[in-house]
This record gives sequence, C-alpha cells and structure tokens, in this order.
Amino acid sequence: MEFKSEKLNNGLAVIGELNKSAKSAAVGFFVKTGSRDETGRISGVSHFLEHMLFKGTEKLSALEVNEAFDRTGAQFNAFTSEENTVYYAAVLPEYLEEVTRLWAELMRPALRDDDFTIEKNVIKEEIAMYKDLPNFDVMERCRTLHFDGHPCGNSVLGTEESIDNLTAEQMRDYFGTRYAPNNMVLACAGDFDWDRICSLAAESCGKWPHKAVERKLDHDEGSKKKERIGKANLVREHICLMSAGVSAQDPRRFAASLLGMIIGDDVGSRFFWELVDNAVAESATMQFGAMDGTGAFCSYIRCSSENVTRVLDTVGAVFDHLAQNGVTKEELRTAKNKLLSALVIKNELPMGRLVDLGFNWIYLQEYLTTEDEIDAIKTVAVDDVHSLIEQFDPRNFTQFCLGPARDNQ
Amino acid sequence: MEFKSEKLNNGLAVIGELNKSAKSAAVGFFVKTGSRDETGRISGVSHFLEHMLFKGTEKLSALEVNEAFDRTGAQFNAFTSEENTVYYAAVLPEYLEEVTRLWAELMRPALRDDDFTIEKNVIKEEIAMYKDLPNFDVMERCRTLHFDGHPCGNSVLGTEESIDNLTAEQMRDYFGTRYAPNNMVLACAGDFDWDRICSLAAESCGKWPHKAVERKLDHDEGSKKKERIGKANLVREHICLMSAGVSAQDPRRFAASLLGMIIGDDVGSRFFWELVDNAVAESATMQFGAMDGTGAFCSYIRCSSENVTRVLDTVGAVFDHLAQNGVTKEELRTAKNKLLSALVIKNELPMGRLVDLGFNWIYLQEYLTTEDEIDAIKTVAVDDVHSLIEQFDPRNFTQFCLGPARDNQ
Repeated sequence: MEFKSEKLNNGLAVIGELNKSAKSAAVGFFVKTGSRDETGRISGVSHFLEHMLFKGTEKLSALEVNEAFDRTGAQFNAFTSEENTVYYAAVLPEYLEEVTRLWAELMRPALRDDDFTIEKNVIKEEIAMYKDLPNFDVMERCRTLHFDGHPCGNSVLGTEESIDNLTAEQMRDYFGTRYAPNNMVLACAGDFDWDRICSLAAESCGKWPHKAVERKLDHDEGSKKKERIGKANLVREHICLMSAGVSAQDPRRFAASLLGMIIGDDVGSRFFWELVDNAVAESATMQFGAMDGTGAFCSYIRCSSENVTRVLDTVGAVFDHLAQNGVTKEELRTAKNKLLSALVIKNELPMGRLVDLGFNWIYLQEYLTTEDEIDAIKTVAVDDVHSLIEQFDPRNFTQFCLGPARDNQ
Repeated sequence: MEFKSEKLNNGLAVIGELNKSAKSAAVGFFVKTGSRDETGRISGVSHFLEHMLFKGTEKLSALEVNEAFDRTGAQFNAFTSEENTVYYAAVLPEYLEEVTRLWAELMRPALRDDDFTIEKNVIKEEIAMYKDLPNFDVMERCRTLHFDGHPCGNSVLGTEESIDNLTAEQMRDYFGTRYAPNNMVLACAGDFDWDRICSLAAESCGKWPHKAVERKLDHDEGSKKKERIGKANLVREHICLMSAGVSAQDPRRFAASLLGMIIGDDVGSRFFWELVDNAVAESATMQFGAMDGTGAFCSYIRCSSENVTRVLDTVGAVFDHLAQNGVTKEELRTAKNKLLSALVIKNELPMGRLVDLGFNWIYLQEYLTTEDEIDAIKTVAVDDVHSLIEQFDPRNFTQFCLGPARDNQ
C-alpha cells in the first residue's frame, strides 16, 4: 500500500492509494460543493448539476457518454449531499485510465439549454417522489429546523419552485466557481499506474482555470425547536431528533460515531432494546454525521400514534441515563467491533476505500490509512464518550414529527 | 490464495479459500434446499425455516443469538431461493471462529412450537408485502407458469393458505432430512486459520446424523404458455417472459450470462436501446439464471397500457434479429467487460468470494478460482453465443402479464 499526492498548478489535488494486490481500481472526482453552498434562489442547483454532467460535453452527446462507460464495463455513479458532489467508477485495472479520462471530460460539461429544460422535469419528479417518502421528508424537515438558517439546513433537492425558477445561466455561473480545480480532488484507489494518472490529469484538467471559492464554516448548536406537521395520508408517526456534535475535522468524531451506534444502531443498541425489541416503535435508529466545521446526531423513529408519548418518554429516559451514567465498557466494546468490521469490510474494496480517501482529503487534506482509522477507533475510552456526552448533551435536541393529520389540522 | 477442502464422516463438506492479504473473513453454511424441494402441502417451509433458525437453540434464546452476533460485530444475514438456503457472515479475522461456532449452533435449532406460531404472522406479512409489489409478483407468477408443474416453479414464500396449514411437526420433519450434513457445505473465505475451522467443524457438526436426501434434476423446456391477470389498483403493465437455458453445471452458462446481458442489461443492451432509451418502456431487462439441472432466461418489462403491443412487437423483432444474425463482436466485448468487472469486484471481498465458492461446490463439487471464471468468460466466442441461440431460441418464451383490470375482467 503506497500513498501518492500531487497538486496541479491550478490547484487540483490528485491523490492515490496504490494496492498492487487489488484486482480492481476505482477513481472519483470529489467536488467540495453541495446544498450548503447554495443561496435560496438557486436551491437544488448542485444536485441538478450532477444530473447535467451526464448529458455530455461540447464533443460528446449523452448517448456517447453512455456508450463510453459501457465499453469500459464500469460500475459507476454519482451523488450529491449537503457538502459534496462525488462522481466515481470501479473498473478492471486495465480500464482505469479510460474511465478517468472520461470523467475528466465530463467535469467540463456543455450545460446545454435544451438538456437543462428537459432535465428539469426529471428533477421535479425526483422531488415529488422523495416528498412521498415520510422517512426522508421528516429528516429533511428536521434538518432545516435544527440548522434554522445555517446553510447546513439547506435542502439537497431544492423545491419544485426553486427548480422552476432556476435558469441555465445561474447553473453555469454556479458551475464556474464551484467546479474550480482548486475546489476538487481527483482520487484513485486499488491497482493502477500513478504516473499515468498524473500525466492524464495534467493533460485533461491542467487548463481548468483556478477560481476564488470559499465556504463559511460555523459550528452550529441547533435550534432545539419542536414542530409537528400532520398529513392526511399517513398512518404512522415519523419522528426525527437532531442534536449538535463534533465536526469532520475533530479527532473526537470516532467517539461520536461509537456513541451514535451505542444509542441507535439497528440491532443491539439502547434504542433497539428499549423501543424496537419490545415493539414500542417499529424502527428507532441514531447516527452521527460529521460535517465540515460542525456535526449532528440524528435519530429516526417510526411508531403508531398511540405510542408517541411512550416513545418520547423512553427516549428521554435513555438520554437521562446516558447523561448521568455514561456508557458501559461492554457496550463500547461491542460498538467498536461493529464499527471496525464495517470500516474494514468497506475499505477492503478499492471502491469503498476511494470514498474514505477522498473525504479525508476534502475535510483534512490528510492521508489516513485504514490502520490509522482502526487505531483511532480502538483507542476511544469510556471517558472520551463521557466527556462528549457532557459537552453535547443529547437532551438538547431539535424535534420534528410527521404523522396523521389530527382533527384540529 | 490457497484452497482447502475436507469432508466429515457424516458428509459435511468443509471448504475454504485462504487469502492472507484479506483484511476480513467470511463464513457461510450453504444448505442445498429451497422451494423446489417442497411439496405443495408444505409450500414455503424452507423460507419459514430460515427465519426459525434465528429463534435460537435448546441452549440459546433469540435474545442471546442476537447479542452473540452483536458481540462479534458481524455483518450477517440469510436468504432462501428456489434451490438454496444460505446463512453467512463477514467479520474481522479474529472473530471468524466465534461467528462460525455460532452459526454451527444455530444449524441445530430448537424449532419451538411457540416461536413457530408467532413467526407465522411475520411470514404472512412478508407474503402480503411481496404480493403488493407487481414487479415481484409478475416474475413469480411467470416462473410458475413457465415451469408448469416442474418443482422449479414452486413459490419460495408459499401462500397464506400453505403457511396457515403448515405445522411445526412438518417443519421439523423437513428440517430432519434437508439439513442433513451431507446436504450442506460450510465455506470460508479471506484471512482465517484453516486447521482451527476444521477442528471447530468436527467438534460442532461432527455428530449431526447423515441422512438419505435427494433432489430430482430434470431439465425443463418451459410451457411457453401466455397469460394475463388484471388488477384494479395497477396503472402500468408488468410483463415477464421466460425461456429455457443451460444449467449451473453446463460450461455454456458463461455464454448464456453474456447473452442475457447483451439482450437485457440495465444500460447499453438491445432492450435498453430499443425500449428504454426511446421511452417505449420504463424498464426492460433480461437476466440469465442457471439452476440445478436446468436454467432460464427471464425478462421483466414495465410500460404503459398503450405501449404493450409496441413493446411485444419490438421484443419479437429483437429476438428475430438475434435468431437470424446473432450478436456482434463489439457487443460481446462490451458484455464481457461488464460481466468481468462485476465478477472481479464482487470476488475481491471475502463476503462476495464466499458466495461463488459455496455455489460452485454446491453445484459442481468443484473449486474454481476467480481467474478460472475470468478465463471462461474471456474465451466465449461469437459462435458460442450463436449456437446457444440456436438451441435455446429466445422466441420460445412463456409470457405472463400483470396490468390494470380491463372492462371484461
């Protein structure tokens, strides 16, 4: 395993972890842009732009893009979050250069007016589809309520209205600064030739102009507001709770992930035993999410209307108990085992490894081996979790509920 | 990479592929039993039994099973198909023995009457849930129509009626023969200690009694019947087509997989260009499935009611063209790339490798390295695909449609 990094003159970071015993190779462009970098007027533009990159370049039609991926046999996709837009592919080693060159071409898209107009409908259908998923909807609404004006509360998809009003010109402007090479990382993992990737990067990306680009990084403690919305078609109560946590740059992020797992892993967590195993709730999970400069714990619970009070009382009791007694050695050990095996298994595949590699560079400009991360998890002590609970009391949460409409609504 | 195999006196096959550079290890019990080994009276028992294995043994309660998995940090699950019931887990290497011992214990379940009665409702809810998914329902109905009496047409889940009528005694009888050690394979992949797995297997599984157990292996050409059912709540037409193919034992299975991909891969296939890209159908895919002694090509197409005739005409034209002209070198090359990268990426992870390892032993009693499979795919020639089309003409298909109720229904 060998790590390499280089920076082009225009600021594009090129990094790679070589693993000659890997049977595949993965490549990704990590663009440090997402809904938190949008204003309300262009809400949803990052995600829309991700779609537009597949519509082709000045030289390639959408059809040719499709065929080009097909020829390499690539497993490829892209995703947009609040903070990042990531384009990735996994291939047999002999196709890595071809697929990297293809992605590099797509990073300078044509953004044609006609394609923009047609794709608007696809985006609006996606918004409508997600609005119909109460588990998704409640989390997004809770995030907006929790961050209450902080850009981390911005919606990734945007609204039907914001998409309707968006112009191709606004998208091209946004693209012009946010996709500047100095705001992107090109990462590779697995079995590949570093020198050839470097010359390919210089050749394909070296002329992209450097631009001034920034992001506001404020920590946010969350609004702690409580709200509920009723919807006629719902039969279950969907509850989302969010509270503040550490950032992606904070060394305590590993302790925070373990705490989230102890409280709300799918199976074997406090939520599991107190809420799911005894059928008080149908689902009850918590996850910690580290972000750029801030972070949050997010719980999702689904239950019947009759059980809402009991669920919230139980959650309160779980949080009180944690604030008073912390966690046990045994549950920390179990959480470590689960987190470690998930980490190791994901990172064993070049495609999985790529994601950690890229995000560590985006957030920390740092290379961490899988072993570094394993060590960081292993050394978390019960006391580390305690002081985290002390500083970020889980009882200080924002709450959003989505459930059946009541008579007074 | 080193392969090891051993057979216990009672017939249990123990196999392992050691990869000291792997960071994780995977283990699975492959039981050669599924819905095709059931009679109508006990339809659904294999899948129900899979659920019951998690309910514990004479020594372990369901809660203790849960906690035991949790402690190892395992990523674990099980699935039941027409032919196999598979229990698997991936862990850090230091937990492989613990999780293997746990699975071995669970392979001799208590099958308590109380648990059986409670779990019946879970199974019936699962049946109801899948019945609500037209894409699943149409495939299951088409399979039954295609195999028309051949046991490969048996439903994996069974019916509400068959589950209602099933007794715990019938399940215990079925278990007694089908879970005989001589009908099972214990497989490991990744980084583990072969000798210790062998002694563990001898100790934990050595006393399970050998039983006479068999399966009828007839090839089936399919009924080629055509049927349609209307349902009031549907707005789209769901079409499933099935035609005969080669078995899991047949060396031509690689050519058959490539043919399935050329005709109906998600992207870039003939169905994609003729039906999806031009919006005649919303979805149109074909996959080849090799089974024990037989095999089938299965297509799934979803479209609007107005487009059904056009879709079926287009499918007919695609099949006619194939029968007359075969496939091109270029499309075979693209299909190989896609199949190879999917194979290599899956097999790079011990968990993925385990599945191929176990199934190759179940079907062929043979060890094939990933490289053997890569070679087998690479050497498929255009002519091999042609002679496959000649023998298994795709035009000889069974057809089942599920769509909106019409006035006369």
